[in-house]
Amino acid sequence: MKQLFVIKVGGNVIDDEHSLDSFLEKFSRVPFPKILVHGGGKIATEISARLGIEARMVEGKRITDKDTLKIVTMVYAGYVNKTIVGKMNRFGNKTLGICGADLNLIPARKRTGTAVDYGYVGDITASEIPAEQWTRMLEKDICPVVAPITADSSGSLLNTNADTIASALAQALCRTYMVTLIYCFEKDGVLQNPGDNSSVIRSIAPETYSALKGSGVISKGMIPKLDKSFEALHNGVTRVVVGNAMKLDELIHARSGTVLALN
Amino acid sequence: MKQLFVIKVGGNVIDDEHSLDSFLEKFSRVPFPKILVHGGGKIATEISARLGIEARMVEGKRITDKDTLKIVTMVYAGYVNKTIVGKMNRFGNKTLGICGADLNLIPARKRTGTAVDYGYVGDITASEIPAEQWTRMLEKDICPVVAPITADSSGSLLNTNADTIASALAQALCRTYMVTLIYCFEKDGVLQNPGDNSSVIRSIAPETYSALKGSGVISKGMIPKLDKSFEALHNGVTRVVVGNAMKLDELIHARSGTVLALN
Repeated sequence: MKQLFVIKVGGNVIDDEHSLDSFLEKFSRVPFPKILVHGGGKIATEISARLGIEARMVEGKRITDKDTLKIVTMVYAGYVNKTIVGKMNRFGNKTLGICGADLNLIPARKRTGTAVDYGYVGDITASEIPAEQWTRMLEKDICPVVAPITADSSGSLLNTNADTIASALAQALCRTYMVTLIYCFEKDGVLQNPGDNSSVIRSIAPETYSALKGSGVISKGMIPKLDKSFEALHNGVTRVVVGNAMKLDELIHARSGTVLALN
Repeated sequence: MKQLFVIKVGGNVIDDEHSLDSFLEKFSRVPFPKILVHGGGKIATEISARLGIEARMVEGKRITDKDTLKIVTMVYAGYVNKTIVGKMNRFGNKTLGICGADLNLIPARKRTGTAVDYGYVGDITASEIPAEQWTRMLEKDICPVVAPITADSSGSLLNTNADTIASALAQALCRTYMVTLIYCFEKDGVLQNPGDNSSVIRSIAPETYSALKGSGVISKGMIPKLDKSFEALHNGVTRVVVGNAMKLDELIHARSGTVLALN
């Protein structure tokens, strides 16, 4: 079975041109087949503020109203996505910038039935992703660069979590490939001590994960990321690594970062 | 030889949701293979104004500085492009939203050597477009929806005229297909009397075109569009039609609008 890398990049790496260039240069050397999923960094928040559109938060979660949807579509699927594609062209990689709406490659539905109305937020299911269409692209050495915008069957665009997209794609493609899912950001991995970048936990199994959550070492934003990682492992993804985007060449061999494993 | 429709839509059609819906419903019924090239309407200007970025014009032409490039990339390749793709999904058409940078499908170079520095503006050449890659997409009944952003070989994104892109694609593909190039907007065609939508000139040949320019009937924005149309015809495109986006079903049969012909 061929190996596939599904790599999600987010955080400050997107916002800083020097970091992004350095990351993409490393990404261009990752062997094909590969998929890059990106977030939007702080640019969407900055543009919203400049346009006078306030971020509406309910219980710590952002609400995607119509104006916010317009902005995240512009920033994620437009500016960030095409900036990455342009830069990747320099390295001779065949890069195709898409969002989940394109060719309906990531079918979604608007989140409903929750106590809070999140607005234009899309939920996706790995089993609904048309794996064959993805495989046909990957077999041609086309590298998809995926912005976290999807659409429902009524044609409405939806804001969708980029970590979730990466995990769902990894799961959808693990019947065809041995999939390594990599979450990269600006830290060196899951840290024992949040302030200390040298305190990387090198490996986490499900039991350790429960203990680390229980003791509060792992908290907040890291929990959904790791929940999705273990879900991916349970559903057939070979390996999940969380670590520093600037060390991508080490992450793909699991020589850096935190490696999640089932046993 | 199979027929291919290359359709450019611009003007107010993009800005008004009702018009856009109505146009796309008609576009979904245009037989495959087909390509849609879109402009950005007034949204980019509106967003620029709200962000306090002034449109810099020199001799009536817009200058694309770094901020403007960011905005047109967001609006054209993000918001407008993905809104169209989402809406097209409803009709079951397989729609792929791209810009010229994707897979380097429209290679460009930054405009230089002009008296005025236009900034991040891209020029393209029909012969440099990889026609085989386009044909492979079209043969799979994938409908490309093209935003007028390109990139040069150094990876820099460039603002590129959508009329030029449509004409260049039509020319690049006319060895493989019988190509009909259609420019749609909010008027019924090239008008004898600019204020009177019923004064459509039904047909223009090169000699009539010279006379109409000479007498001032055809002026300003219409001249580059028609220059590109006649260039396309001289380079093998079968037919060019200019007309109302709301009458697309008639335009594809040349039953409405202005038909440009070499003889």
